[in-house]
Amino acid sequence: MSTASEDIYLQAAKYLVPSLNVNKHKGQNGRIGIIGGSVEYTGAPFYAGMSALRTGADLAYVFCYREAATAIKSYSPELIVQPYLDLECAFELIEPWLDRLHVILIGPGLGRDSHILNGPVTSIINYCKINSKPLIIDADGLYLVSENPELLSNCSKVILTPNVMEFSRLVKKFLNKSIDPSADIKDEQVKELADKIGPNAIVLLKGKSDIISSNAVSIRCSVSGSGRRCGGQGDLLSGSLSVLTWWAQQNNASLSKFLEENNLTTLDADMLACYAASRLIRETNAFTFTENHRGMLASDMLNCLSNNFYKILEVD
Amino acid sequence: MSTASEDIYLQAAKYLVPSLNVNKHKGQNGRIGIIGGSVEYTGAPFYAGMSALRTGADLAYVFCYREAATAIKSYSPELIVQPYLDLECAFELIEPWLDRLHVILIGPGLGRDSHILNGPVTSIINYCKINSKPLIIDADGLYLVSENPELLSNCSKVILTPNVMEFSRLVKKFLNKSIDPSADIKDEQVKELADKIGPNAIVLLKGKSDIISSNAVSIRCSVSGSGRRCGGQGDLLSGSLSVLTWWAQQNNASLSKFLEENNLTTLDADMLACYAASRLIRETNAFTFTENHRGMLASDMLNCLSNNFYKILEVD
Repeated sequence: MSTASEDIYLQAAKYLVPSLNVNKHKGQNGRIGIIGGSVEYTGAPFYAGMSALRTGADLAYVFCYREAATAIKSYSPELIVQPYLDLECAFELIEPWLDRLHVILIGPGLGRDSHILNGPVTSIINYCKINSKPLIIDADGLYLVSENPELLSNCSKVILTPNVMEFSRLVKKFLNKSIDPSADIKDEQVKELADKIGPNAIVLLKGKSDIISSNAVSIRCSVSGSGRRCGGQGDLLSGSLSVLTWWAQQNNASLSKFLEENNLTTLDADMLACYAASRLIRETNAFTFTENHRGMLASDMLNCLSNNFYKILEVD
Repeated sequence: MSTASEDIYLQAAKYLVPSLNVNKHKGQNGRIGIIGGSVEYTGAPFYAGMSALRTGADLAYVFCYREAATAIKSYSPELIVQPYLDLECAFELIEPWLDRLHVILIGPGLGRDSHILNGPVTSIINYCKINSKPLIIDADGLYLVSENPELLSNCSKVILTPNVMEFSRLVKKFLNKSIDPSADIKDEQVKELADKIGPNAIVLLKGKSDIISSNAVSIRCSVSGSGRRCGGQGDLLSGSLSVLTWWAQQNNASLSKFLEENNLTTLDADMLACYAASRLIRETNAFTFTENHRGMLASDMLNCLSNNFYKILEVD
């Protein structure tokens, strides 16, 4: 698929972006919760949270290990960082905050401590299922659901954002199939995984092209970034996706009309949120690379994110 | 009320701004104390303190929880951060500092721990009342006074800066009336609350227009910002207001003359300090938005604050 043919998705995705007007109060454009930040990892939840804010969320909360909190807080005063994830009563402390959050992103810098994954993180996923809260699962969150596929049964909305290694582990555990991570993945393989997870699941497979698939349809985002693969870029994607996913939950008659007029009714707002996030991060990578070259870092991309959003997704 | 008709308030507010001259010593233009910064929140007191400094205060002190201190210190070396608020002897440790501070701002990132609110924070408010120290109350400080309306009786000077949800809680507790937060609030409702609190109280209600009211008069700041509602903007307002309030305490014959000449004698310096802070933050929002668009954050606004102050409030 050529890049030009993707522009219709970008046009459609613009309908997701809510108007900025003075009658709205703080929070309405997005309160995002991020579950991650551990003894080992503190950068990932920072990138995810800041990416949500720079995409247009009003507030971003990070729920992390006690030991990770001061470092994450110190990166930026913008994030609200709650150091509860490894306390005995973690879920009891976190639960009251979940209700007011619009989308929960599980995984950036989460680590693989089984007590944390099987304890509070599992409780948070179950809370989101019961309360129809959209979930985005990335990184070590994908490890958790690979080990416990039943965790995702009956989700009202879940988006998984694996890279190819994480994808092959998911395929192994959900479909009991082996795939060769070095071979080109086909759209049909991504669709098969999404279908197995459920009717409300989307898989966004990151790669040379990103493949975005529900059980009904697959699309690709093939706009090229640069060859630079700096750490943190996946966190920027999942963070940006979290707020776009919130926007996709709104009733949107204009979008439905646009999709009908363009014979794109197999797509929906959630698929377009994935496309928008993928395109935004890939274009931001390409743009930032022209300024920072081989030494480009995720922080550089973060600095360019809001202007790139304005350039490609803002409605004039 | 049109924005043009507000320009007389801006002209008047310029009389508050003290001259910068070499005979003054450090501190005279403002030593501000901020009570806030908790386990959950560290960004808010940073924004408030930095906003005070960027508006022109000489020194800003933050009195916070022990666990919050390192993060707040890490955001900037400009703030003097005292990690005493949750110690057993908190008030004893904080009291010696209060005497040299000009204005105390209570609430940014304070949290709602009842031991802290009913312990040292209540003691600090009582100290300010006994010692005629101007108080500004925002955020969780408003929660505290909503729960204990008698705390504000006999204040020599107190300014409350609620948003509409905080305002409706105050109205419930002070006036035993219910209001619909989604309806437009009328000037008279704000004046009624200010009147109930006392003759030295001002309420600055933040909203689509900001309504500023004493028991005598109401004015509005209607200059539009942008539709972007990022977290921290309220903290920028209360921080900026804290130093303007200190300036408003000076004898000011030129201001009195200007108010008389323009038939504005129902206004006073404190009301104009509120107007100036409100206008400064709204104009800074609008200006910063043109550069950062939807991804604009409070840190971006902070970076533009002193230039915007220069543009709209500095006397040439």
